[in-house]
Amino acid sequence: MINFTPGPSQLYFTVQDHVKKAFRDGIPSLSHRGKQFESIFAETTEGLRSLLNISSNYFIVFAGSASEIWERSIQNLVEEKSFHLVNGAFSKRFFEIAQQLNKRPDKSEVRAGQSFEKIQIPTGSELIALTHNETSTGVSLSMPFIHSVRDENPGSLVVVDAVSSLPFPDFDYSKVDAVFFSVQKGFGLPAGLGVWIVNERCLAKSEQLLSKGLSIGSFHSLPTLHSHALKNQTPETPNVLGIYLLGKVVSDFLRKGSHAIRKETEYKAAILYQALEAHPLIKPFVTNKNDRSKTVIVAECGERTAALSTYLQAGGFFPGDGYGEFKKRHLRFANFPAHSKEQFESMVDVLATFQ
Amino acid sequence: MINFTPGPSQLYFTVQDHVKKAFRDGIPSLSHRGKQFESIFAETTEGLRSLLNISSNYFIVFAGSASEIWERSIQNLVEEKSFHLVNGAFSKRFFEIAQQLNKRPDKSEVRAGQSFEKIQIPTGSELIALTHNETSTGVSLSMPFIHSVRDENPGSLVVVDAVSSLPFPDFDYSKVDAVFFSVQKGFGLPAGLGVWIVNERCLAKSEQLLSKGLSIGSFHSLPTLHSHALKNQTPETPNVLGIYLLGKVVSDFLRKGSHAIRKETEYKAAILYQALEAHPLIKPFVTNKNDRSKTVIVAECGERTAALSTYLQAGGFFPGDGYGEFKKRHLRFANFPAHSKEQFESMVDVLATFQ
Repeated sequence: MINFTPGPSQLYFTVQDHVKKAFRDGIPSLSHRGKQFESIFAETTEGLRSLLNISSNYFIVFAGSASEIWERSIQNLVEEKSFHLVNGAFSKRFFEIAQQLNKRPDKSEVRAGQSFEKIQIPTGSELIALTHNETSTGVSLSMPFIHSVRDENPGSLVVVDAVSSLPFPDFDYSKVDAVFFSVQKGFGLPAGLGVWIVNERCLAKSEQLLSKGLSIGSFHSLPTLHSHALKNQTPETPNVLGIYLLGKVVSDFLRKGSHAIRKETEYKAAILYQALEAHPLIKPFVTNKNDRSKTVIVAECGERTAALSTYLQAGGFFPGDGYGEFKKRHLRFANFPAHSKEQFESMVDVLATFQ
Repeated sequence: MINFTPGPSQLYFTVQDHVKKAFRDGIPSLSHRGKQFESIFAETTEGLRSLLNISSNYFIVFAGSASEIWERSIQNLVEEKSFHLVNGAFSKRFFEIAQQLNKRPDKSEVRAGQSFEKIQIPTGSELIALTHNETSTGVSLSMPFIHSVRDENPGSLVVVDAVSSLPFPDFDYSKVDAVFFSVQKGFGLPAGLGVWIVNERCLAKSEQLLSKGLSIGSFHSLPTLHSHALKNQTPETPNVLGIYLLGKVVSDFLRKGSHAIRKETEYKAAILYQALEAHPLIKPFVTNKNDRSKTVIVAECGERTAALSTYLQAGGFFPGDGYGEFKKRHLRFANFPAHSKEQFESMVDVLATFQ
């Protein structure tokens, strides 16, 4: 059964071998204060830097999950006001976390399945939260849109949730301030690790809040994460095995090349959207082609949802349920590097014969 | 090489087989919102309940690390004042986290290697932080001492850091309010998971802080963790593999029996302390026998520290360095269920021949 749920998803095909080698080499028992761990940390972060083309004024740190990074972003980067572009359950949760941390967040909200036109962001928004890929609905923000936000709001920090899209998007890191993801989606790894890519403007902001006497958290405050990262360490005993495996899969991705990964992703997305458009009973949920995610593809299946899911499973393909209110009307298909062209083609062939 | 560092430490001997089975069964790709994950969550928490004899008014939730649980404890259980018994680096860090969260913690501090006599805890301390086993120095608080604290301070929540001692200590859960540990020590697992055992008094306190308008965090607030735990779920995508492996090792421990595990731990501790006392060049760091930890045994080796470490490594035994200021004077020996009687006996024999 090939797993097309958008996360946890199909494991990348090399993961199990990397796990075997990790146990053979004693990685799970390594001290996180030793040289061997430091070189794992360095290999993983340098690999990511190279794969995602991250500039040197950024540093890379680890948390337990992307949910934690939502919280740490608000805690470290916002004194009062964040602004959130909300178009689904996950972008909304980022907004709600700001409320739970007693900030005064504001938002621009559009209906599920839609993206944003020109938006007015209130001056004084310290952080602007963009969700590159809304996993609940399959809407992606376009790169020009994301890159325009900071030009128009130079005083704000632009923070991008790329949980279910990286390593696909090619961000211009001079136009954003922080990007984060979790490893169980596009990187095809077991869950339990969030990755936060942050620049010096973010660090300066967190230090400024701290110097004003605000609490920015403790062991996972940005200054603490940063000072440890400079030594290739983490403040706490981290998910050492997770960091090791991420480094190994990033090496595999580098060998394949990010260009090839992106081309394959686009190809697989194209054939699935084409099949959905051609199908008499189902269709893409996102109507505007420019807003359609390449990495989480959502099909509107109406009352045929359960039947299609069963049909695909009989063919060896496990689609993701719709999210929340769409559970009984949508199916979601992850399109990650772990899903090969051949698997995608076979799945699309089966889907096309559904009636 | 057998790893005696106090954590990450030697893996329990069954872990690698459990990992193999996990991959065979697709555990790392499971949805954390599905029935299969819920039954893993239930198996792990019910197993822990049975192994550690945890009463039913407690619930069990997961975090990324014990460091995170330090932070969540302060955030959810303290409006202003916590009180900390500090006798080493880790109990001190719990205190510092309360400071970083802008609370007004107080402490009673004794020298490294010592424990506490009768202490006066200020009235109004909302949380009393006890470190059952100070991993940096090898001092354990006695069970009667721990159990006396709440009788004398009935208005306070008694929170016990048992990071490097569980599953050894047999807590009376009617005398404490929360206990926590991380899996890479006594449970012999890869790092990346903290376990928080909390009672209803803690939940009520966190709800009270929330109703006063205080922030108690977001995705990992106690009410959020609790409401998800009632469904055998977690708020975020957790370390699913870690929760699964913990459940499997807990089953192994249950088959062996907690009585047998405790007896073996006591036996291994006794032979090592005896060897240290009998040795002409080294001695136990903790002088008062009642204060000596059974699970992290610290040897004062003075200028022979490096030589002894090399000698033991040549014999196939990897001791832990001393912590912090004691790095060049101490060696630390973890005594966890992963360290068999035979391994301990061999290590002690080698240590006894050092000169």
